[in-house]
Amino acid sequence: MRKLSASIREGAMAYLKRQYKVLIIFFIAMFVILSIMASFGMLTWFVPVAFVVGGFFSGLSGYVGMSIATRANARTANACQTGLNKGLRIAFSAGSVMGFTVVGLGLLYISVWYLLLKVVFGMDEGAITSAMLTFGMGASAMALFARVGGGIYTKAADVGADLVGKVEAGIPEDDPRNPAVIADNVGDNVGDVAGMGADLYESYVGSIISACALGYTAFAGSATVSAPAAVTFPLLLAAVGIICSMICTFLVKTGESTAQTELLKALSRGTNTSAILIAILAIPMVYFVFGSGNLGIYGAIVSGLLAGVLIGHFTEYYTSDTYKPTQNLAAESQTGAATIIIGGIGLGMMSTMAPVIIIGICIMCAFGFTGGFADANMGLYGIALAAVGMLSTLGITLATDAYGPIADNAGGIAEMAGLDPEVRERTDALDSLGNTTAATGKGFAIGSAALTALALIASYVQQVQLVGGPDIQLDLQVMNPAVLVGIFVGACLPFVFAALTMNSVGRAAQSIVIEVRRQFKEIAGIMEYKADPDYATCVEKCTSSSLHEMILPSVLAIVTPIVVGLILGYNGVIGMLTGSTATGFLLAIFMSNSGGAWDNAKKHIEAGNFGGKGSECHKAAVVGDTVGDPFKDTSGPSINILIKLLSMVSIVFAALIVNFHIF
Amino acid sequence: MRKLSASIREGAMAYLKRQYKVLIIFFIAMFVILSIMASFGMLTWFVPVAFVVGGFFSGLSGYVGMSIATRANARTANACQTGLNKGLRIAFSAGSVMGFTVVGLGLLYISVWYLLLKVVFGMDEGAITSAMLTFGMGASAMALFARVGGGIYTKAADVGADLVGKVEAGIPEDDPRNPAVIADNVGDNVGDVAGMGADLYESYVGSIISACALGYTAFAGSATVSAPAAVTFPLLLAAVGIICSMICTFLVKTGESTAQTELLKALSRGTNTSAILIAILAIPMVYFVFGSGNLGIYGAIVSGLLAGVLIGHFTEYYTSDTYKPTQNLAAESQTGAATIIIGGIGLGMMSTMAPVIIIGICIMCAFGFTGGFADANMGLYGIALAAVGMLSTLGITLATDAYGPIADNAGGIAEMAGLDPEVRERTDALDSLGNTTAATGKGFAIGSAALTALALIASYVQQVQLVGGPDIQLDLQVMNPAVLVGIFVGACLPFVFAALTMNSVGRAAQSIVIEVRRQFKEIAGIMEYKADPDYATCVEKCTSSSLHEMILPSVLAIVTPIVVGLILGYNGVIGMLTGSTATGFLLAIFMSNSGGAWDNAKKHIEAGNFGGKGSECHKAAVVGDTVGDPFKDTSGPSINILIKLLSMVSIVFAALIVNFHIF
Repeated sequence: MRKLSASIREGAMAYLKRQYKVLIIFFIAMFVILSIMASFGMLTWFVPVAFVVGGFFSGLSGYVGMSIATRANARTANACQTGLNKGLRIAFSAGSVMGFTVVGLGLLYISVWYLLLKVVFGMDEGAITSAMLTFGMGASAMALFARVGGGIYTKAADVGADLVGKVEAGIPEDDPRNPAVIADNVGDNVGDVAGMGADLYESYVGSIISACALGYTAFAGSATVSAPAAVTFPLLLAAVGIICSMICTFLVKTGESTAQTELLKALSRGTNTSAILIAILAIPMVYFVFGSGNLGIYGAIVSGLLAGVLIGHFTEYYTSDTYKPTQNLAAESQTGAATIIIGGIGLGMMSTMAPVIIIGICIMCAFGFTGGFADANMGLYGIALAAVGMLSTLGITLATDAYGPIADNAGGIAEMAGLDPEVRERTDALDSLGNTTAATGKGFAIGSAALTALALIASYVQQVQLVGGPDIQLDLQVMNPAVLVGIFVGACLPFVFAALTMNSVGRAAQSIVIEVRRQFKEIAGIMEYKADPDYATCVEKCTSSSLHEMILPSVLAIVTPIVVGLILGYNGVIGMLTGSTATGFLLAIFMSNSGGAWDNAKKHIEAGNFGGKGSECHKAAVVGDTVGDPFKDTSGPSINILIKLLSMVSIVFAALIVNFHIF
Repeated sequence: MRKLSASIREGAMAYLKRQYKVLIIFFIAMFVILSIMASFGMLTWFVPVAFVVGGFFSGLSGYVGMSIATRANARTANACQTGLNKGLRIAFSAGSVMGFTVVGLGLLYISVWYLLLKVVFGMDEGAITSAMLTFGMGASAMALFARVGGGIYTKAADVGADLVGKVEAGIPEDDPRNPAVIADNVGDNVGDVAGMGADLYESYVGSIISACALGYTAFAGSATVSAPAAVTFPLLLAAVGIICSMICTFLVKTGESTAQTELLKALSRGTNTSAILIAILAIPMVYFVFGSGNLGIYGAIVSGLLAGVLIGHFTEYYTSDTYKPTQNLAAESQTGAATIIIGGIGLGMMSTMAPVIIIGICIMCAFGFTGGFADANMGLYGIALAAVGMLSTLGITLATDAYGPIADNAGGIAEMAGLDPEVRERTDALDSLGNTTAATGKGFAIGSAALTALALIASYVQQVQLVGGPDIQLDLQVMNPAVLVGIFVGACLPFVFAALTMNSVGRAAQSIVIEVRRQFKEIAGIMEYKADPDYATCVEKCTSSSLHEMILPSVLAIVTPIVVGLILGYNGVIGMLTGSTATGFLLAIFMSNSGGAWDNAKKHIEAGNFGGKGSECHKAAVVGDTVGDPFKDTSGPSINILIKLLSMVSIVFAALIVNFHIF
């Protein structure tokens, strides 16, 4: 087990090192570009520095999370030899390290900058928030690279291992004879741990800094509430959220029953209690900071909290095989692969309805409660606070999420090390729970990304007004052709981005398929356990092809808002951001839920329904699952970051676009 | 052949009769609702009448087209016994009847109403155009039912016939032993002929009446151009377009070579010449109607014409196996069904980029050339004229489109009647060409739907201002939460609609699968040609299940804009329309092109590549094709109508929404 764990850790660390090496070049290039812009007065000199530091912190949270996760996998497998609760505790504790690293570093980053700008540079709140808005792009860019690269890695390894190992050679999953099995486990870490961490780090930072900026605008002229109070309130809320989440991690424990409902209860106890705690503590906080005249702000925070929980539940409903949709999907395997594919796509598309309604109600509530219909700036602050409210439980939500891949790895290690079948049963129970938390976590990530993106769009509008001064001609009407065309282009971006990342997975998986086939042919005795497969080459192939493939989609995400801005102007950019947020939100939900449902429909059949493992139905479900892999683990989650990064890039390049544009 | 053709015709007519029976109830109900609204003064009394007449004309064009198409199929097969050109001429002439019925009835409908309102009721142009805007809903509603019902029918029959016949029983396509084979041929007619006709009838009528209305607003106060001239210009342009198209149908003839390039040249000669003719004739028309000061209007018309042609070409590029994308897709079948599915989805999503850029440029050009940046009303008139320009060649474009299913039917009849293999070769050549024209036709339908929807949105804005008077508080900024939530809800609608229609196809196909299996089991001697299968029951099952399944999605499309309006107000409705147009446009292209590419990748393999018919690659490609069927023939094209119908319903219920809404 130690050997296996070490191989996985080595592979994961090797990947991160190579990834960071590639990114250093990118960060240096961006540093130079931003410095040039700063020297022309289009940005403050803080931006190039903040860009690099932000990227570093985002990378660091991924690195820390992953190095703990890769240390905890064998320990979890080992603990499962003694009992289920011990296994759960170790996996969950390791996930918590990741969760709290993300929120801790995020809050630290913002607080240090705030104090630095205020105390050392003596800036006022208006200048601080405007400057800090541009500080999120480093984290966004880093997150995109991590998500896209990690997503391609994990699915290339997974699909490659399955297509040759399971389908062609007929050996089970996680079989040590499969040369891609270590790469597959490495992938769980680089994709689901490091990628997810960077993603939510970015949402966290983005939502807080946009809330600070919108808070300043809302209360700049207020007689009753000081602007600094409104600006620091989101930080305070986030800090209280971290403490509540931390306390509630101790509530996560279980008995020895491997029943999913019991295990789910153990995790839900932690997340739900922390949400309730925050909802209670926010009452006095809002009262003391804003006074009794602004209690509507509390409504905005709770709207966000509730929306996050509800979207998570609907995601679970559509993707867990304890409910009808996924059970029906499994039944569609009876008429073959085509019908289960059609059914899964239909399910995913249908599942967009509930989150849209929830987010819609959340927006109207957050806007209305805060008094937005009388003063739009207040309403926009409300929307941003809803995002912060939703993300206030991030510490513990992320812990339940990052725990999944650790349990998954532990199962793989137990299998490969030939532990007692009882151990595998326990790790499987933990892993299966991890699939559910991963699905709800994805719903949460998407919901928070949409709210954060909206807050960032509102911030962008303010930034344009600030940079452009009185000359600015904002015409954000949807019938303005620049806005309209912007909406069309923005709506198109998530589709193109999803296409690029899916094709990347296809190409990268192809290279693994060829390599695994080669090893089965050339290394005599693999099948008889007489010779070890060459794990390292598969790891290396995954690393190089995923790093190679991550470049194009990432660069596209950074270049497009600038090009659109130069042509269509800031009005067009706002249209583009709106279009991409709406479509991106939908496409991300559709792809994540289709993928999750196919995965669980397959598991439902494997549990003995419709003929069980090896039946024709199972074969059809495996096709569905394979299609779903890049849906749910590469393209879907990458779109989250895309929509936030587009806003971040637009904010940073606002001055450029205000000065140079055609329409 | 006569017997077969008669069975197909009977089945198709039986379907239409039953469909119209169902719809009569709907039309009576809507007539009552609209009459009640009229009696409260929320609509003119013309609307209920126009609703019914519009629906009747739309249904009539579907009926005429289909009755010709079902008469021409056997004749085409017969003519192919003499030669290829004769077959092409018959199929294309029949398609032309359909094309010119649609445009002729469309133009007649509008002209008669115009004259009636002007001469008999003595209304002025402003009142006429405002009233006539509400006259499109009948055609829209009819089109939606025809498209959705027909789309479900055709794919349920196709999928059902393939799953049992081809996959389970191993008999070829169009084999007379398959009980669903007649239903399959009926489906080509009700879906691809009647459905497509109703769809484009609606775009045609919608674009012309919105252009008339926007023309009035643009020139109402003009000193140089009279408002009636601006209002009637779109009618004039459409009329000239019909004449040009008609002349060019005589250019369509070919030699005896079955090479696709030769055949394509024959059709392109007709469509391209007609586009060029219109482009030339539009110069003096614009000059005489608008004078030398408004020549920019000519630019708008040509933008539309060009955009239509370009979108068609890009559709061909992505879906024809003479180009790389579909060839590469066929290659992905080598690693199984999952990879070809992922590849096809990626291809479809990628293919949205070019049409979005084309439509974007077209909007900016049409708006800018007409002087929209100085006077937005002029620009909106320009966008509407671009739609009319694009649709001015509809007569001949629809002819090349409707010809496809006729050739497809002819092939089926040739096969079933046991004609000489040479005949089948000729019909196959015609059919294969029909696939290409169907794909370009779909691109054209989607592009024109998007432009028409935009023109209708602009008309809606004017209608709201007119109905609401000075009290109206239009705030169409994207940061207005009602608009924002509207955009999210609107963006979600095409996804939900696609999900509903896909699931409908799944359920309807399931009933055919069960019926075909039953017949194979219960009717002894089918396989040995000793007993005839019971075709009629399959036709009956397809009819009843598709009519049953068409209700929910259609009602959703009509009810949603009213509900959204009652909650979010007119600002929210405009957001919804914008969101649904943008996402609907993308989703329709994605689904149509994925489906088309899968179909042709399968044909590419059947032509002998990657192992040819019966190989593992072919099996994988069949899965892709089956998934693509509802994509390209049900959900994708239905979305076109959805986005137009949403605008139409909003326009009709504008007065209701202006008077009653929460936000």
